[in-house]
Amino acid sequence: MLFFTQCFGAVLDLIHLRFQHYKAKRVFSAAGQLVCVVNPTHSLKYAPTRCAAGQVSTEQSILPPCHHHEVVHDPQLVPCTCPLFSCPWEGHLEVVVSHLRQTHRINILQGAEIVFLATDMHLPAPTDWIIMHSCLGHQFLLVLRKQEKYEGHPQFFATMMLIGTPTQADNFTYRLELNRNQRRLKWEATPRSILECVDSVISDGDCLVLNTSLAQLFSDNGSLAIGIAITTSKVHSSEAEM
Amino acid sequence: MLFFTQCFGAVLDLIHLRFQHYKAKRVFSAAGQLVCVVNPTHSLKYAPTRCAAGQVSTEQSILPPCHHHEVVHDPQLVPCTCPLFSCPWEGHLEVVVSHLRQTHRINILQGAEIVFLATDMHLPAPTDWIIMHSCLGHQFLLVLRKQEKYEGHPQFFATMMLIGTPTQADNFTYRLELNRNQRRLKWEATPRSILECVDSVISDGDCLVLNTSLAQLFSDNGSLAIGIAITTSKVHSSEAEM
Repeated sequence: MLFFTQCFGAVLDLIHLRFQHYKAKRVFSAAGQLVCVVNPTHSLKYAPTRCAAGQVSTEQSILPPCHHHEVVHDPQLVPCTCPLFSCPWEGHLEVVVSHLRQTHRINILQGAEIVFLATDMHLPAPTDWIIMHSCLGHQFLLVLRKQEKYEGHPQFFATMMLIGTPTQADNFTYRLELNRNQRRLKWEATPRSILECVDSVISDGDCLVLNTSLAQLFSDNGSLAIGIAITTSKVHSSEAEM
Repeated sequence: MLFFTQCFGAVLDLIHLRFQHYKAKRVFSAAGQLVCVVNPTHSLKYAPTRCAAGQVSTEQSILPPCHHHEVVHDPQLVPCTCPLFSCPWEGHLEVVVSHLRQTHRINILQGAEIVFLATDMHLPAPTDWIIMHSCLGHQFLLVLRKQEKYEGHPQFFATMMLIGTPTQADNFTYRLELNRNQRRLKWEATPRSILECVDSVISDGDCLVLNTSLAQLFSDNGSLAIGIAITTSKVHSSEAEM
């Protein structure tokens, strides 16, 4: 009986996933583009710092925010860069990806162009939607955050970080694209290195910023589809002149 | 003596204008693209309503905001649609452009692609930068507004309105593009008809929205260059499926 119940649940999950994929494909319609459904993670902004490693059993659990590790004893080691968790882990840059996958259960997707489908956009701030993106021989972390910079006025911030050094990050350009209801919004920039905390990128506002009304215009039934593309950067012709 | 002083002033103005053009061209670098320097107009949001027609002697004068004329006696007449002024003028849609030019001294530019160079972005809200754009046989009004939706946090809102009916507006797509410091932001949408008040478009947030930090990243020495392009709209392939 338990077997049948579990099977039925799995079939329902598959149907739901298929429906979400279909919705995102309708929006982006690019044949062969990989659609990834990303569920939100609610963060408690002022929760006491604790080790999250042992507590990440469900994605919907309440988690503390990014915590800066100011003292790194070995200069070759980097602290855990997951923006959601305060985690005492330290390791070499090469093993950050496996730490994020294994300990923080962040999915990783392959492909030059993917669609990030963030569900449940209505959830209260602070909420994060996070995924890793493997492309052009590197791994990137995409963070969509709902946050109240001004009390009572939540905004959405989306940015892409390279899991690598700032020098490596300078070689890439990422593009985030929203397209719905005869409106299109594109943001292109050089990714920041994961060695810079995502919190500072968002507090600087140097990312794609959406207010609630724009987010609603681009959302379909509470889900926001963001097209993501990464290219090796060439200096913009206009920039070259400056 | 007066003649020489005036000549010298005119030469200085020309040098300044040339410098502003050069700055915008450096940013957009599209050969042959028309650059228009647009000076700000400070609006007093809660000023008493008055007729502005006789008072628009200088562009920097303090002016009352958009005022809705709720009663239009002749249904073929439209009220003055200038977003800056409360003006008792009414007329047919065909003469709105000449009214805006003559009474409100709003410049008009020709060309499919132009660069709108808004100066003095640091001025306190509420401030508007306005120009008309003649293209594809129609006239459009571009409005950039600095406004404090949330007290103490000014934002910039940019939108394009067709000086025509909503049905005519549906035939076009406008694109606003910012490009500086290895960042690029593009907004594409169907223009609204000037028969809808620009205030409601901005309060709905259905336009290009920039917070102060993004506006600073895209500005060069206090001026913001916005590339504008208008095309006849074709339904996006993704929209067609919906």
